[in-house]
Amino acid sequence: MEWWGVIAQYSNTPTLRYSIIPFFVVMLIVERIEEMRRWSDAERRQGRKIAFVPTMGFLHEGHLSLVCDGKKRGDRLVVSIFVNPQQFTPQEDFSAYPRDFGRDRELLEMAGADVLLHPSVEEMYPQGYQTGVRVENLSALLCGAFRPGHFHGVATVVAKLFNIVQPHVAIFGCKDFQQLQVIRRMARDMSFTVEIVGHPTVREPDGLAMSSRNAYLNGAERQAALCLSQSLRAAEDLARDGEKRASVILVRVAREIANEPLARLEYASLCDGETLAEIDELRDGAVLALAVWIGKARLIDNIVFQL
Amino acid sequence: MEWWGVIAQYSNTPTLRYSIIPFFVVMLIVERIEEMRRWSDAERRQGRKIAFVPTMGFLHEGHLSLVCDGKKRGDRLVVSIFVNPQQFTPQEDFSAYPRDFGRDRELLEMAGADVLLHPSVEEMYPQGYQTGVRVENLSALLCGAFRPGHFHGVATVVAKLFNIVQPHVAIFGCKDFQQLQVIRRMARDMSFTVEIVGHPTVREPDGLAMSSRNAYLNGAERQAALCLSQSLRAAEDLARDGEKRASVILVRVAREIANEPLARLEYASLCDGETLAEIDELRDGAVLALAVWIGKARLIDNIVFQL
Repeated sequence: MEWWGVIAQYSNTPTLRYSIIPFFVVMLIVERIEEMRRWSDAERRQGRKIAFVPTMGFLHEGHLSLVCDGKKRGDRLVVSIFVNPQQFTPQEDFSAYPRDFGRDRELLEMAGADVLLHPSVEEMYPQGYQTGVRVENLSALLCGAFRPGHFHGVATVVAKLFNIVQPHVAIFGCKDFQQLQVIRRMARDMSFTVEIVGHPTVREPDGLAMSSRNAYLNGAERQAALCLSQSLRAAEDLARDGEKRASVILVRVAREIANEPLARLEYASLCDGETLAEIDELRDGAVLALAVWIGKARLIDNIVFQL
Repeated sequence: MEWWGVIAQYSNTPTLRYSIIPFFVVMLIVERIEEMRRWSDAERRQGRKIAFVPTMGFLHEGHLSLVCDGKKRGDRLVVSIFVNPQQFTPQEDFSAYPRDFGRDRELLEMAGADVLLHPSVEEMYPQGYQTGVRVENLSALLCGAFRPGHFHGVATVVAKLFNIVQPHVAIFGCKDFQQLQVIRRMARDMSFTVEIVGHPTVREPDGLAMSSRNAYLNGAERQAALCLSQSLRAAEDLARDGEKRASVILVRVAREIANEPLARLEYASLCDGETLAEIDELRDGAVLALAVWIGKARLIDNIVFQL
């Protein structure tokens, strides 16, 4: 892809701009932090609004829907693909995380991303790297209790990516609800100027929330994985019938999961949508979040209650 | 000072700019993060280079020499005064740290600062604040071993201030050598674009390194405090005579401090100037750093060896 980059550079010169742009869809692939920063500096100086979608790649329709949202919100769109070792716990297999850079690149080109930022681990965390960002309270709850250090890794990489990309707006999926709240809090606490947008969860036709980790599921497990969205829908039905007690709602969710032999519930929690603290009684803006093991895959899902 | 701010705002309109600027020295006093950011955005859009000197106030000639340096390095100079509770350990008395805002303001006006950023603790760390920045290895050494959490507090507030002020260059005193290295590492690791400048330690005529904490010293203690710079000079003399063994140099420093009845050595260390790891043999760029208690005051000093 090297020559695309060359064209993109020259396409900013007056003579070439009009002759090349109409014939090629140009997406820059950037591997170096310095190059990304120069690009963002130049775009910002020209008054353009930069939207940013950070991902770990192996893109699915959920990601692409973030990308479409980003296209609308900014004059320029940067998408990053970086499988961040810092957010894998020692028990989790960083090297086995699914990757398909060629396919991701094609998808992002078609979706109209302007830059694909794809740094190496050495570029992001060179020898001697030792700085971390922690959002203390939010990181310890829900998934954080089972994945110690995970959200520190998330907060660290997102803070660093914000400094590299310098976006005006960044879009994250609501499927990773706790991640979204950690990033919102981090951005506010550290006085980043980036607007954080939460994008609704994208689901398969049968209700399964889209996730790169769904690739781990075999046929029977894929069917079993429906128990996550089904249990959330059962909880919604209860709420619609007027049930407010967290205990009753959570027992119902646990029973739905227990009915699926291939599933093991890690946690289900009804919590405040901002602090993520557990609540006893359902209220507007409350979140029901759960994590379920299906075979080797740890899947998460959630709903936000609008009462 | 409110009306100065009003004038400074209107002085950007063409009619008022030339009539007011020549007659008034205008220093904006900014207490709100949002206002600071708007100012910095506007200056950056006009292509001006912003220099930044973060302080905890109670300014002395050491600070003012950073301010003069900042004036030369940027088109605009922002100085912050914020006594940061996060960098005081539980045993240290945050409320007793010396403060004199009126005097500081006058000094900075005379020195030609463009903005004095003076946020409240509530503005910097509002309810629910929970994000920290840690530079792990560097923060555990030297002073960090005796002031647990101190450098996490420093890294956190400086990262936040960088996001608020958006400087091109920030100036820190070399007297706080470990702090300088922690900040350099944090800025590099997090991909901040800020150039970090270390400014040489400013000393009293008799050699005492300038510090706001010198205000804690009574007459006898002020005299006793000379043992810090004198012990460093003794180490320098040894090095000039060809001594390279850290053990010999450190014993000499310890003896100098022990000779002063009012002084108690907390640590003295000969270490690598970047990693701060202890070294056995003197080399170019090595640092001799020490912390000494004189009465209630904990004083630090250091020298960098150029061989």
